[in-house]
Amino acid sequence: MKSTVEISAQIPFNSSLPMILPKTPQLTSEQIAEITAIVGEFGCTLQPIIGTVRTIYAIVGDERDELMINRLEGLAYIDRIDRIQSPFKLMDRRSDLANHRVKIGGVTLGRELLIMAGQCTIDPKNPHYFIETAHAVKEAGAQVLRGGVWKPRSNPYSFQGDNKSLDILMDASRRTGLPVVTEVMEPEHIQLALDAGVTVLQVGARNALNYSLLRQIGRAIAGRDTAVLLKRSLHMGPLNEFISAGEYIAAFGNPNVILCPRGTTPTMDGYRNHPDESITPLLKEKTWAPVVVDPSHSVGKAIYVPACALAAVAYGADGLVIEAHVSPSHGIGDDPKQALTPAVLAGLITQAHAIHSLRQSAS
Amino acid sequence: MKSTVEISAQIPFNSSLPMILPKTPQLTSEQIAEITAIVGEFGCTLQPIIGTVRTIYAIVGDERDELMINRLEGLAYIDRIDRIQSPFKLMDRRSDLANHRVKIGGVTLGRELLIMAGQCTIDPKNPHYFIETAHAVKEAGAQVLRGGVWKPRSNPYSFQGDNKSLDILMDASRRTGLPVVTEVMEPEHIQLALDAGVTVLQVGARNALNYSLLRQIGRAIAGRDTAVLLKRSLHMGPLNEFISAGEYIAAFGNPNVILCPRGTTPTMDGYRNHPDESITPLLKEKTWAPVVVDPSHSVGKAIYVPACALAAVAYGADGLVIEAHVSPSHGIGDDPKQALTPAVLAGLITQAHAIHSLRQSAS
Amino acid sequence: MKSTVEISAQIPFNSSLPMILPKTPQLTSEQIAEITAIVGEFGCTLQPIIGTVRTIYAIVGDERDELMINRLEGLAYIDRIDRIQSPFKLMDRRSDLANHRVKIGGVTLGRELLIMAGQCTIDPKNPHYFIETAHAVKEAGAQVLRGGVWKPRSNPYSFQGDNKSLDILMDASRRTGLPVVTEVMEPEHIQLALDAGVTVLQVGARNALNYSLLRQIGRAIAGRDTAVLLKRSLHMGPLNEFISAGEYIAAFGNPNVILCPRGTTPTMDGYRNHPDESITPLLKEKTWAPVVVDPSHSVGKAIYVPACALAAVAYGADGLVIEAHVSPSHGIGDDPKQALTPAVLAGLITQAHAIHSLRQSAS
Amino acid sequence: MKSTVEISAQIPFNSSLPMILPKTPQLTSEQIAEITAIVGEFGCTLQPIIGTVRTIYAIVGDERDELMINRLEGLAYIDRIDRIQSPFKLMDRRSDLANHRVKIGGVTLGRELLIMAGQCTIDPKNPHYFIETAHAVKEAGAQVLRGGVWKPRSNPYSFQGDNKSLDILMDASRRTGLPVVTEVMEPEHIQLALDAGVTVLQVGARNALNYSLLRQIGRAIAGRDTAVLLKRSLHMGPLNEFISAGEYIAAFGNPNVILCPRGTTPTMDGYRNHPDESITPLLKEKTWAPVVVDPSHSVGKAIYVPACALAAVAYGADGLVIEAHVSPSHGIGDDPKQALTPAVLAGLITQAHAIHSLRQSAS
Repeated sequence: MKSTVEISAQIPFNSSLPMILPKTPQLTSEQIAEITAIVGEFGCTLQPIIGTVRTIYAIVGDERDELMINRLEGLAYIDRIDRIQSPFKLMDRRSDLANHRVKIGGVTLGRELLIMAGQCTIDPKNPHYFIETAHAVKEAGAQVLRGGVWKPRSNPYSFQGDNKSLDILMDASRRTGLPVVTEVMEPEHIQLALDAGVTVLQVGARNALNYSLLRQIGRAIAGRDTAVLLKRSLHMGPLNEFISAGEYIAAFGNPNVILCPRGTTPTMDGYRNHPDESITPLLKEKTWAPVVVDPSHSVGKAIYVPACALAAVAYGADGLVIEAHVSPSHGIGDDPKQALTPAVLAGLITQAHAIHSLRQSAS
Repeated sequence: MKSTVEISAQIPFNSSLPMILPKTPQLTSEQIAEITAIVGEFGCTLQPIIGTVRTIYAIVGDERDELMINRLEGLAYIDRIDRIQSPFKLMDRRSDLANHRVKIGGVTLGRELLIMAGQCTIDPKNPHYFIETAHAVKEAGAQVLRGGVWKPRSNPYSFQGDNKSLDILMDASRRTGLPVVTEVMEPEHIQLALDAGVTVLQVGARNALNYSLLRQIGRAIAGRDTAVLLKRSLHMGPLNEFISAGEYIAAFGNPNVILCPRGTTPTMDGYRNHPDESITPLLKEKTWAPVVVDPSHSVGKAIYVPACALAAVAYGADGLVIEAHVSPSHGIGDDPKQALTPAVLAGLITQAHAIHSLRQSAS
Repeated sequence: MKSTVEISAQIPFNSSLPMILPKTPQLTSEQIAEITAIVGEFGCTLQPIIGTVRTIYAIVGDERDELMINRLEGLAYIDRIDRIQSPFKLMDRRSDLANHRVKIGGVTLGRELLIMAGQCTIDPKNPHYFIETAHAVKEAGAQVLRGGVWKPRSNPYSFQGDNKSLDILMDASRRTGLPVVTEVMEPEHIQLALDAGVTVLQVGARNALNYSLLRQIGRAIAGRDTAVLLKRSLHMGPLNEFISAGEYIAAFGNPNVILCPRGTTPTMDGYRNHPDESITPLLKEKTWAPVVVDPSHSVGKAIYVPACALAAVAYGADGLVIEAHVSPSHGIGDDPKQALTPAVLAGLITQAHAIHSLRQSAS
Repeated sequence: MKSTVEISAQIPFNSSLPMILPKTPQLTSEQIAEITAIVGEFGCTLQPIIGTVRTIYAIVGDERDELMINRLEGLAYIDRIDRIQSPFKLMDRRSDLANHRVKIGGVTLGRELLIMAGQCTIDPKNPHYFIETAHAVKEAGAQVLRGGVWKPRSNPYSFQGDNKSLDILMDASRRTGLPVVTEVMEPEHIQLALDAGVTVLQVGARNALNYSLLRQIGRAIAGRDTAVLLKRSLHMGPLNEFISAGEYIAAFGNPNVILCPRGTTPTMDGYRNHPDESITPLLKEKTWAPVVVDPSHSVGKAIYVPACALAAVAYGADGLVIEAHVSPSHGIGDDPKQALTPAVLAGLITQAHAIHSLRQSAS
């Protein structure tokens, strides 16, 4: 026969509800005293949930403080602490920002499929290629122009970009009327890009956890129309870490954050990275932020890009960012390997819109 | 100034062309003698490719023997051995089987999208559910009926399946006219399934590298119309290992091998497994075998299944194997979590065909 | 102001205490009714844990049934179900078997470091190598002789082993007085090995989740002194899955289960596999079963083996299983690459015992 | 009958020797012309290695240019390009720097085991803890004092460090005579740390691929005695990427680079990260740089740290960096979870030296 329980009032769990799971069936009174003292320092109390075989303990109060959790996790008799709710205030899909919509160049993300396309790297010695690419991607259906000015390179002796390319980028923007996206890596880049009129700042995968850079960008674009294309880091980290990086931007007052899966290592024998467009539905359960997938870096070879791009749309992506070049073999950076020709891009965009419509009509 | 070279005749590399890369710029004459002796035991010779800075060495002859390679790799002065070509004779897309087409229930894989659907597990105590599911998946557009008779379970105390379910499976097959697929795990299962008239034998992910089972299946179905749905193992192993498992079946005379990506561990926080439909284009570069993706196990939850299924078709899959149930909450095994209702399945099949047509028309 | 709570009696949680976490702050009464009905079918009841912001729900009763959990996880309004305690009855370190000690050849695992050594594969055409290796590993300090009779090979055209090798193995055992370990892959192998007098049956990594084989072994050795060396599967699966495979053996009445980490894929550029000796302390928190690490397959190359072996002992392993050969270059299978010479093995064993003593004296 | 070959002169391969592997047995003359034109732009020529079944093509000249390789990899008829030698000039163990030894606080890395220990985070409100910890770790045997001043935090609302802690760090350094290591994340930090007299600058795992920061550090410490403790990034990237990050520092004239494995994600159920001390032997084959392992972040919990630390020494690490605190529960940052007490640290250091000696005497 089971014993019963009466709960005379609501246990005052707050939204995050950490539960302490001890290693033993119950804690001793000394252990409870120790924990109570710790949580007390943070204005919280301890609430036992008593069972016939074991007891677990809820922490009640404003328990968001990581330090308190860290101190508790350091106690030898605690097995683990389960936390339940969202660690982010602004990026959470249940937050006040949930109805915010990111708009770029007339496209509202989430309503219409956004296509960003252009070169991995602008060649400062041959600007005409980029100008031609810009016209070609517009013709193919892209709404935002991508062009790399500064490049993070694992080899310190490789070409690292050139400020002159920024002029070429903006010239192409003016000629085509397309807003532009480019990667920034240093405080100096942020200011140069904003002064020039860049619409979307990209944070690259290698800097996705560079919180100094995220903070600097957040500060620089607070209150502006600028958006941030935040690439997922190279490691298969938890999704919350990815979304939290976006929280750094939003916390300074700019909610125009776009999450960009782009493949993680380890590689999948044959692809450059491990394609990760499949996280799209999982991200959308957690955050309101739009998801724009980068198939070019995910697979790393032009012939594999279209299938990956279409799969991303099938998974519910709000947009795609694709490398394209009028003459890939004359590109620099990753373009010779990864860039699509304008003709292939145009066919892909048509198919992507068809799958996007299929999904919209079904849901 | 560079020195030059004249090649007076073809270097007799054979198709697999292993290249020995030493740790030092050149090998000593003693080392060369040792290697020459080893490769000589296997009827091969050594061919140096001499450079200004370093020399590499090709092995010439019938060098497919793994033992020879293993012995060479064991030499301390060898860094590694690069091999270039396919390790499989029959599954290779350039093999004599390249024009073979797998046909199931009137559908030729590669021409038409094949949909297999049905329950993870047949409940022997409530056979009517499976009969209803069979009619419902046929109505929804499935061409093959899936039903689990025997189950591999990590918990030794869980339900492991029941021979009675085989009768239910075949009864449903007769009533609907659909061919059936079911998993076999032991020699006894193979014979029972074949005697009963099962069309497709499934090898589960946990047995994907159980070569004894693969050999037994190969022997049992040699010369028959039976096909094998070979699930990818749970580990993120190299694709060649996956295809080689198929070679075990084909080597006994039955080329009706279907490769089935179904997600690998580690899990992607939120999904049951790490979805792997993206390997489809890579598999198709290596083998002629059709690829049928299992989105149900990849994501492990009904609400995520449709997006994953559509992404698989976008990646070029030849078919899908999907868990469905007339009343998922009454299912046993994985059905309550993973199975789609017939209505959702029908909508998904329609969309899957639309994306398949889109791809066919584009290519 | 927080409300308070009085708990009038123990909430009758049983040992496994599954907690239902809904997607919404509270469940509706319809949802509660639905859940109550499901858990009722399995003899359980639902216990709400009410908070100010959200409520979670404990399942009370004998809730070990996976089917019940699966059905609950299939409900759209449930986010997830947290389970807390051990899924295994016998392998758990708090089970009745916790004081069981596995003994092999006079060595009690956990007290003394156990060294198993010998060839990956016995060459049936050159039996003298194995006999010499047997004497040499005994001389070097090994207490158990390893010798591969049957081999699982990814290439169907490779040497798959030979029953004659079993005679060679047992001959070496008699000559040296060492008990032997060998891998079995089929029911036929189990019986042959037991009849011949094999002391430790090895289950290989590719068969670690082949529950049919585990069950057959469990049945065959119930009540015997035979032990099982259970290799970890190639995939980075959860540790519980590894231990549960051992539960299959123990559940049939033979508690002589030894867990063997042996590296998992994906590979770590340079090693054959991803070394995993570091799981040893984690396994020991969960189970009483001894842990014997295989450094040879973890790293896959003789020069890397000693460091990996010593690291395993540093991590608390109870033993090592190491490939060795009197003349590695004349070995077959993995021996030319992986096998240590007797001299290197002897030095390694001495160092391993030194580190083992260091740990024993410190703890 | 095999054909033969005479090589009239050395094929002028240079040190990196890229080999082009086409998808077809041979290239057409048009394809050869296209490739020849591309490599010609970079001052290279093409050298066919002709076989009976297939031909591969070596690129001869100064082929280090990534752009050339990228352009070649973009050609549809090329399967892949194999490169053989080291991508780094200074960090390579065969480079001119191979005899360079990093010295810190009187300890020459590679000769003597270096122990760095101290707090994850200095609490600016309670400086006395850090001063006490400094004395205690010196007493326990540490030769370098660790103390975190600035912290990269995934949660933007967490404590991010405080410049005041730098004064506390240097005060502890003066009182104990120990040199110090601390993490820097921004240009401003570098200058502040150098001006204050920090001996070792740490680059954290999240910034391991932040090439802007690496370049800034390289410039700032060129020609100084300062060393850099370069943590491995969180992702399981190739080892060359890790070593190349060190090349960024060395390329500016400071060869005092220390590589620090610290665990990678994904986590190993139970540990904070995936311990990676096992890469030590692989790093040492590629680079002369000393390897100092961080067991604290690898496992993330104090009770697991000693085993991981000893395993690192068993794998050949030149040093350890360990979190310690006189009163872990009063620590901030990761200290409550990860920090060892001085007593445990002292015991661990003794054991670490014993294993280090064991290895030295054996080799």
